This record gives sequence, C-alpha cells and structure tokens, in this order.
Amino acid sequence: MAKTKIAYQGEAGSFSEAAAESLVKKNREMVPCQTLENVFDSVQNGKAEFGLVPIENSLIGSIHKTYDLLLDHKLHINAETQMRIVHCLIAPKGVSLKKITKVYSHPVALDQCRNFFKANPTIAPISYYDTAGSVKMLSQSGAKNSAAIAGPHAAEVYGMKLLKRSVEDEKNNHTRFFMLSKKPNADVKKAKTSIVFSMKNMPGVLFKALSVFALRDIDLLRIESRPLRKRVWEYHFYLDFSGSVSEERVLKALDHLGEITTFVRVLGSYIPATR
Amino acid sequence: MAKTKIAYQGEAGSFSEAAAESLVKKNREMVPCQTLENVFDSVQNGKAEFGLVPIENSLIGSIHKTYDLLLDHKLHINAETQMRIVHCLIAPKGVSLKKITKVYSHPVALDQCRNFFKANPTIAPISYYDTAGSVKMLSQSGAKNSAAIAGPHAAEVYGMKLLKRSVEDEKNNHTRFFMLSKKPNADVKKAKTSIVFSMKNMPGVLFKALSVFALRDIDLLRIESRPLRKRVWEYHFYLDFSGSVSEERVLKALDHLGEITTFVRVLGSYIPATR
Repeated sequence: MAKTKIAYQGEAGSFSEAAAESLVKKNREMVPCQTLENVFDSVQNGKAEFGLVPIENSLIGSIHKTYDLLLDHKLHINAETQMRIVHCLIAPKGVSLKKITKVYSHPVALDQCRNFFKANPTIAPISYYDTAGSVKMLSQSGAKNSAAIAGPHAAEVYGMKLLKRSVEDEKNNHTRFFMLSKKPNADVKKAKTSIVFSMKNMPGVLFKALSVFALRDIDLLRIESRPLRKRVWEYHFYLDFSGSVSEERVLKALDHLGEITTFVRVLGSYIPATR
Repeated sequence: MAKTKIAYQGEAGSFSEAAAESLVKKNREMVPCQTLENVFDSVQNGKAEFGLVPIENSLIGSIHKTYDLLLDHKLHINAETQMRIVHCLIAPKGVSLKKITKVYSHPVALDQCRNFFKANPTIAPISYYDTAGSVKMLSQSGAKNSAAIAGPHAAEVYGMKLLKRSVEDEKNNHTRFFMLSKKPNADVKKAKTSIVFSMKNMPGVLFKALSVFALRDIDLLRIESRPLRKRVWEYHFYLDFSGSVSEERVLKALDHLGEITTFVRVLGSYIPATR
C-alpha cells in the first residue's frame, strides 16, 4: 500500500513533524521542506498528499506567513491539532551540563528560555536557523562544549542525550497546526470552519459581517485581521466559527456574508483539536 | 522656554524620528532610544514628555511588541500620525551605484526591496540592526563599495548622498504611529478612541462586545487580537472606534462593555491622522 506523504517545514525531529505524526499515525512518509512556501507547493503540485503548517502560538499569536500563504494557494484545511512546546537541552552523549559554554537554537526558542540563561550565565545562546536543525548539526560535529534547545523528539531522532527537559520560561506554550490538502474534507460533523473575507472599508460593516453568524446562533471562535497588500489600511479577516459547511444554517450564513463582503473563501471545515 | 522632549526608537534620521517631528513641529528635543521598552520607560519615568511608537504597517500588519507594551504600561495615546515608508539607497559622497557590492539595512527593509536586488545581482544585501543606523555606520567608515537602505531623512542627517529614491517593491507601504504621554488628552472632539479588553472564553461574547458599539451607532474602525500569556487560547482584543471619551454615548458603551467583559482599559482618545 502506498504511504501517505506529509510535507512539513523544518528538519526531522521538529515540532511540526511530531504534530504531523500525531494526525497520521500509520503508513506515512514524512517530507521535510526548507520553507513554508515549499510545504504549500509540495501539496499543490502533488509531491505530498498533506501539508502540516503552524497557524498560531499561544505566546506569540498568529503565524502571519501561514495566513498569507493560505490566501495565495487553493488548499483546504482537513484537520487541526495542537502541541505543547517543551524545550529541552540536548547534547551529544558523554557531554554534561557543566562542560557546556554554547547553546544553539532558533532565536525564538532561545528567547523563550531566558530564565535558563540567567541561571547559567557562563552559557552563551547562539542563534541557529532551526531548533531540530541545531541538534542535527551537533550530532554531526560532536562538539563537547555545546548543546542545542529543541523538542524531545529531536534527541531521539539524532541519538542524542536529553540533558534537561522543559527549560522554557512559560509552560503555557502551545502551537496550533493545520493539515492541508488539495481536496476539502468530505462531510464533517461537529466541525469548526475557517473562512477568510474582505469588505469595502465602510464603518459598521465588520459588525454586520459578524451578525450573519450571531443571528443564526453560530458561535465565533476567533478573528484575525491581515492587511491587504495592494490597498492601504484595508484588511482580510480570518474567522473561525463552530459548524460545518455540511450544515444548512452555515451555508445560509455564508450566502448572507457574500451580500455584505467583496470576497469570501472557505478555507475548510474540520474536527476541532481536543483541548 | 523648555523644549518638549520626545522619545523614539532608533537612530537619528529614522522614520520614527520623522513621524515625531511631523507631530511636534517646534521647540522639540529628540531622545533616541535603543528599544521600544526604553521609549515607554522614558515617558513613564519622566525623562521625556512624549514617546513616539509604531503601531501598524500597511504591509506587515500590527507591531505586536507595541501592543504588548501598551498593556504593560499606563500611558495614554495623545495623537496618531502616519508616514509613507520610502526606502532610499544612500552612500558616502563620491560613491556611484556601479562601485557598490554591499547594501546594509534592517532585514525587514532589505526584504521590502527584493526587486532592486534582483535587478542588481552583483550587490549583496547585508542585515544591520537599524535602517538609519546603517547610514550612520557608513558615514563613519566611509567605505567606497557600500551603501545603505533607509529613509530620505537619514541622508540629510548624516550628510550622505541619496543615490536612488524609492527602491521599495510596494509603494503602498505606510506606517501608523502613536504619540504617548503620561496624561490623557484633554477634551478631544471628532476623535477616535483605542481600547483593550478581554473576556471569558465564552462563544458569542465577541459579538456581544461589538454590539455595545453598533447599538449606539459607534463605528468600529479596527480590531486586533493578542494572546493572553498566562491563559492558553484566550485573547486581549484591541479595538479602535469613532468617537471620544468626552461623548456620553461612548461612556455608556464602555459601561455596557464592562458588563460583558472581564477587563477594559481606554488607551486614549485622539484626533485621527488624515489619510
């Protein structure tokens, strides 16, 4: 049986890879990509059946790049999942914490572990392009004075030692991911739906747009705005709401929204991640 | 007469400095700060009367750091302004475009001038911490093979040559700035108001929150959400609407909002920037 190919951004052992594996548990083949654009393109051109992309982090907020790419491509959200981000100190086997003078990781991860660096002032944080990538690099160099900060999966994947688990400052650090495909989900019950719309810059229209859902007892879950690149101070609104496009009231609400807005697109209906 | 001190982030010649100068035209003293935190602190501790901070860019979207700092400090928005971001190629006098092999600037500015680098493949973009700072650095080094990308003011401030104006890809590149003070504006007519609020994560509450304005014919101008750091997937909402806290209907709406939300703060009423 052919394996399900899943594209994701980053190196083997990254949080995105772990998130993809939690959604497709068997008979899968992971396709690591350098950039988020590459993930979208891999799905669009059929190199992978699914693409796994981060959409939001509970500390940082929305991943704007993903929102912009969702708009530029015609892919459909098929599923969502979320992961707690646990940063671990990972080093080649035989290296102890006392010997370490340098710690490599993505700058965002380093910034989320400030307390660790305050408590260990002889250790210098050094920026690297990727969390799991920094573990891979150390597994190849075998440096005895260096460690990396990455997820626990990265230690396993590269046969490295997990020196210290959970060195992040804030434990409420979660990332939400979408799994994308060229095809929309078949009939989804008890789903949530993500859409994007824009409208003429007319005061009061945003309230009207939200009314089409409230008037039909459809709960709004999240709203996010992104500027339109070609027109100054106009926005695309990304909205998540309860319900699926297989429901009559949702279709009516979307019809009604079409009367008010200049552009509406359904990004997908999918089963919500359990919290 | 004592000069009005205005803190801003960046070097002399930056877009923030130009924005501050457009709001306070006479008898001013500019106080450059290394970070946005330093700008907020300078106003809070009285080192400067006003602080000038970017809040939103028409291509990138909100400046999240500023939103987070607005929440952490008790400052009041006194004014807003906006500037078109015009990136210019600036070099020491006597340097011509043909001789240039390196261009220094802030990575965001370099990224906004991709077409220039495509058209000039022998010129390498090099990241630097600040746009105007890269002009300052070249004015000191006098390098004959290098230029910087920054606003036109920077060329004037450092006595450098403006080799090429408007090398940015997108002309619709505008930044909106707030001027902050320890005191709220006195009675402001024909104003707009910015507030921040949060609420229990209860479906339908966002719609109710927006209703308090719609029911009083108060136009919503903008909405932005930022995650609450201590609670997963809950948000602060930042809202701009037409009207001032000197108006009865605005006060009633804010009272009503207080019934629905767990936290509301008025960030300021101020005259809108002309568009």
